[in-house]
Amino acid sequence: MINVSILGYGTIGSGVFSILNENSDIITKRNGEKICVKSVLDLRAFPGDPVESVLVHDFSEIENDEEVQIVVETMGGLHPAYDFVKACLEKGKSVCTSNKALVAEFGPELLNIAEEKKCNFLFEASVGGGIPIIRPLKTSLAPDEILEISGILNGTTNYILTAMAEQGTDFATALKDAQDKGYAEKDPSADVEGYDTCRKIAILTSLAYGYQVDFEDIYTEGITKITERDINYAKKLEAKIKIFGSSKKVGDKVSAMVAPSLITSEHPLYGVDGVFNAILVKGNMVGDVMFYGQGAGKHATASAVVSDIMEASKHLGINIKTIWNPDKLSLVPFKEHNSKFFVRLSGNSEDNAAKALKAFGNVIPIDAGYDDEYAFITMNMSEKAFDKAAREVGNVINKIRIDA
Amino acid sequence: MINVSILGYGTIGSGVFSILNENSDIITKRNGEKICVKSVLDLRAFPGDPVESVLVHDFSEIENDEEVQIVVETMGGLHPAYDFVKACLEKGKSVCTSNKALVAEFGPELLNIAEEKKCNFLFEASVGGGIPIIRPLKTSLAPDEILEISGILNGTTNYILTAMAEQGTDFATALKDAQDKGYAEKDPSADVEGYDTCRKIAILTSLAYGYQVDFEDIYTEGITKITERDINYAKKLEAKIKIFGSSKKVGDKVSAMVAPSLITSEHPLYGVDGVFNAILVKGNMVGDVMFYGQGAGKHATASAVVSDIMEASKHLGINIKTIWNPDKLSLVPFKEHNSKFFVRLSGNSEDNAAKALKAFGNVIPIDAGYDDEYAFITMNMSEKAFDKAAREVGNVINKIRIDA
Repeated sequence: MINVSILGYGTIGSGVFSILNENSDIITKRNGEKICVKSVLDLRAFPGDPVESVLVHDFSEIENDEEVQIVVETMGGLHPAYDFVKACLEKGKSVCTSNKALVAEFGPELLNIAEEKKCNFLFEASVGGGIPIIRPLKTSLAPDEILEISGILNGTTNYILTAMAEQGTDFATALKDAQDKGYAEKDPSADVEGYDTCRKIAILTSLAYGYQVDFEDIYTEGITKITERDINYAKKLEAKIKIFGSSKKVGDKVSAMVAPSLITSEHPLYGVDGVFNAILVKGNMVGDVMFYGQGAGKHATASAVVSDIMEASKHLGINIKTIWNPDKLSLVPFKEHNSKFFVRLSGNSEDNAAKALKAFGNVIPIDAGYDDEYAFITMNMSEKAFDKAAREVGNVINKIRIDA
Repeated sequence: MINVSILGYGTIGSGVFSILNENSDIITKRNGEKICVKSVLDLRAFPGDPVESVLVHDFSEIENDEEVQIVVETMGGLHPAYDFVKACLEKGKSVCTSNKALVAEFGPELLNIAEEKKCNFLFEASVGGGIPIIRPLKTSLAPDEILEISGILNGTTNYILTAMAEQGTDFATALKDAQDKGYAEKDPSADVEGYDTCRKIAILTSLAYGYQVDFEDIYTEGITKITERDINYAKKLEAKIKIFGSSKKVGDKVSAMVAPSLITSEHPLYGVDGVFNAILVKGNMVGDVMFYGQGAGKHATASAVVSDIMEASKHLGINIKTIWNPDKLSLVPFKEHNSKFFVRLSGNSEDNAAKALKAFGNVIPIDAGYDDEYAFITMNMSEKAFDKAAREVGNVINKIRIDA
């Protein structure tokens, strides 16, 4: 029998508890040994809940319980999650977490302790909820040099952008709707400003290249500036606007970014709508591989945590090597990133076309029927060159990068 | 250093050889130990090819080479592949294969030998080419009861159906084009009659439920009867025709089938066109998860084989438990499968509507502008009930099941 403790009986923690109970037969059969929840740490009481009989309020009871081999961390946040996880690993207990902030910030250190203590630090659920991506990246795609990762990694923003496109609502209305449905938090900034996506692409990029990518070093732009007009231009182009976390190999370096992108129907992620997430990985041998599913949600995310528990239980005393060096990966400076841009200039001045041509070089105009602005697509250019041109014309309303 | 032998220097075998050389640095870093190809078995000579220096013509040289820990089988066919694989496993050498016929026929027996001899029999490349699906099914989805697997598992037929829909060509022309481009064999029956898809869904279903599914027991219908008119009706319905290998949990049993299906744009596999494959897995906790990529091709498939080599090399002397009991899985008899049907009746008889109503019950007529036939969609009904109704009307030209 394998004894598990769960830190935090919130949405994901209670999901893990419920899957281990409801799917107990299947899990035991596939795992070889039964997995039991011996204790659950939460400061709250849950009268009448099945968790009641195993609830503890003091972390040291779990830390010092030598029968507990695997600990699940689903508290979220950095502290005390980090301190608890570190303490468990130091005691040789494997830890499975859904906490992307923790992994993005302390991944290499915690992996290193796990290696020393011959246990495991696993975090499949930290990116893409129920979508298998961390394990495939470490195993199935291990023969490949990773050329690109592009992901729709946040269900809230994808839901909002889908609603704006399909129902013609503006950002504020779509956000309110997402909040009413429980898809967005009261304070939505972690989602809509792209911070959540940023931590996820930092984790995936670190794993793909084996060196630390600090999320603070990734240029991050949210979706709060996307308007109905932008959406209408996208429709005119038979395109959609999605917020991507992406990283690409460029020579010896990697460019990484979080930003809204225009994509056309040829793009493998074009059909990924609503709360769904998808991650496209391009390998130098395997080509394009895409993983799609529910990027959040109690049971989907908890299922990923349980898959980690099962892996940990099959590797008691054996560390599964994960290459994530604490040294920093060389990132391409943001100003040197290249792309095409969709650009809108304000005003009905007839000079706009000439101004755009002079500042941006050859451009392709796009008419979506607005006579108080002028829109166009640029050729491929760097962020630096774009900024220079934008300053020159002086009347850019909005720009969106184009993912070809 | 890990020593590998490759049986068969054809498309996939030479792809494995080339990836192990070209991506050698990355593979060594991620694997911890260098992987070297010590010998390659092929009856042919390859003068001037880098393989020349390690080429052998006698299997016993590999079988008896105690330095060879992992053997790759990429010969295809059942014999001598089966005999060679079995002999290697008996000697405690792990085997990684891309051979779906071998896995579908002898999977449980070979897995059993591997378990006894503390080595591994791995076959990621046997289904979906470069798409990670076997390993995710065994690990990431292990906490879930699998409710459904639906896959576009054959690139040749998907290419043909896509060409028919996009270019308006008939089946024969699209097949010829696929043959000219090297996507279809001279004898295309294994693809177009659905046999290839059938073996793949048999493997996936066996792994999902842990019991043997004989491919002979799966109803299999190819795409040779699909005409331009069927495609036009599909367009009228804003649907596409795809050939699916699918299995679904129905009570205590599982229904499995290979057949063309009509799907609308809400279906997660709707956007999978051309030579691409995709597999949708529905778990009782994780919900819908989809895997997408190149289902064939030298380097994509070889990349999957190399991922197995790396897994085998990390598990020398340790069997990775795979649950695949040789006892047969209980399948729902084909006549009891339920679905809606798209149906075409011949002739411009005004009786057709009344006949259809009488035989099939409530139906929804579809007009695609042909005045010499009558088409409609049935309510949900069993195969048995469908056959009875079809006999009653006596003038069914074609029928296609609808995947909702």
